[in-house]
Amino acid sequence: MSFGDRLTLRVRQVGSATCVGLDPHLSRLPGELKQLPGHGIDREACAYAAGVFCRGVIEVVADKVAAVKPQVAFFEALGHHGVRELEKCVKAAKSAGLIVVLDAKRGDIGSTAEAYAHGCLDDHGPMGADAVTLSPYLGAESLEPFLKRVDDGKGVFVLVRTSNPGSNAWQNTGEDAIAPKVAAWIAAENARRAAGPYGPIGAVIAANLPGESASWRSAMPRSWFLVPGFGAQGATAEDVRGHFNEGLGALITSSRGVLFPKAGSDGSKWQAAVAERATQFADAVRTVST
Amino acid sequence: MSFGDRLTLRVRQVGSATCVGLDPHLSRLPGELKQLPGHGIDREACAYAAGVFCRGVIEVVADKVAAVKPQVAFFEALGHHGVRELEKCVKAAKSAGLIVVLDAKRGDIGSTAEAYAHGCLDDHGPMGADAVTLSPYLGAESLEPFLKRVDDGKGVFVLVRTSNPGSNAWQNTGEDAIAPKVAAWIAAENARRAAGPYGPIGAVIAANLPGESASWRSAMPRSWFLVPGFGAQGATAEDVRGHFNEGLGALITSSRGVLFPKAGSDGSKWQAAVAERATQFADAVRTVST
Repeated sequence: MSFGDRLTLRVRQVGSATCVGLDPHLSRLPGELKQLPGHGIDREACAYAAGVFCRGVIEVVADKVAAVKPQVAFFEALGHHGVRELEKCVKAAKSAGLIVVLDAKRGDIGSTAEAYAHGCLDDHGPMGADAVTLSPYLGAESLEPFLKRVDDGKGVFVLVRTSNPGSNAWQNTGEDAIAPKVAAWIAAENARRAAGPYGPIGAVIAANLPGESASWRSAMPRSWFLVPGFGAQGATAEDVRGHFNEGLGALITSSRGVLFPKAGSDGSKWQAAVAERATQFADAVRTVST
Repeated sequence: MSFGDRLTLRVRQVGSATCVGLDPHLSRLPGELKQLPGHGIDREACAYAAGVFCRGVIEVVADKVAAVKPQVAFFEALGHHGVRELEKCVKAAKSAGLIVVLDAKRGDIGSTAEAYAHGCLDDHGPMGADAVTLSPYLGAESLEPFLKRVDDGKGVFVLVRTSNPGSNAWQNTGEDAIAPKVAAWIAAENARRAAGPYGPIGAVIAANLPGESASWRSAMPRSWFLVPGFGAQGATAEDVRGHFNEGLGALITSSRGVLFPKAGSDGSKWQAAVAERATQFADAVRTVST
């Protein structure tokens, strides 16, 4: 089954077009995890706490959201200890039935891109995620090694329009801007490759650009959109209404808004609080996606 | 001392504006390393062989070239075992006096970019490299967390014009293309930040575009260029002549051409062969940089 079809099925099964970002900010972990020996001092201990936290989140969100999106940077900041925990989190999330989108924003060419594709996606590789985010600066050929994995049900989400205030100047200003060129390529490739309604090549389209969503939706009708910027980053359910195609085709992501319910909490019931936030998140998105 | 000044000093000390890419392709490792127990089967064993190889290369090139550029993808393809070996290689290269450019092509925003910057550059972090390659798709603000490290002597090389055949269409076609916008920003930031002739923000400018080098050189007079594509990828010393500013300002990189002197060699004298290739590489670049 193609990645697009797998994601459609999962979203329908769980009744929620949502994704929780796994961003283990060390300073915001629940109090009980920050009290583990060595926390804040030793990288191995910090990585362990980050891993316990992320697996605890996975446990309580697995029946509420469609996917998780581990943010590779937070694990890499803890060195190889962090990467080992990331590998364990990806496995735990897949075992729990979640779709795993590795947020790595990788982009390189030739044998290097092939090494990234193996490292991120192959089931016999170290991660075996379902999909990975990619940066398209190096051109279409930088994406192709990843697309060799689509017959194994793997997918990609290519950066098109991002949520940060300064993104527009380089990405999307003027007739020859890169974002519309990337979108046109994605649309053509999905049309060529897709058997079902959605192809394997998704696009990252920010939540906080409701004025643009209709045009991106129409430019890439057969792409799943990965939509960051919901909740703590400011976007609301109404802002992402236009990202959907009749209730499908958009995977709305929230990270901090779900992960850290109360800043400074002592954390004794942190999993229950995360579960409650995940339910609220899924409910909010359901109002615009069904 | 700023990164630009440190790189200038190192290039002058060693008399060579060169960088060896550390791309440990498993299938091309010297025969004696491929015979280590578990090689090709077990990720930990493969990572160990890759680490032995890279540290062996570092040992023999440290007095011949200015810098090494570990390609993160090849280490990540081996999971956390590979990342541990990468950490060891970076330490070994720094101890040997080499400048270490982590070829990671990272690019993200906000706290995620901060996590990458810490993970790649901070001396109290897991890698502590001297510089890192960055992809600018997300805009200038995606680069800024890295620039907070310039006062610690750290630098970046931002992708501008890459060497792959398909790069031009999205990067550099038309008036509003992203590459010239990025170049203009780099030039302005270096002018604002640099005390000496070179600022902390380098640019990746492919070796195989000799027709463009003069215009990029003039667009970014105070940037060090990281110049891939030499040797095995096809570019010659003449092709990179225009990348230099009177013998400085360009760091020419070669990976496979130095690393793998004889395909299929049994490898019994592989370090001597790598040393010979590194000398030839440095000699070739010296003909156009002094």
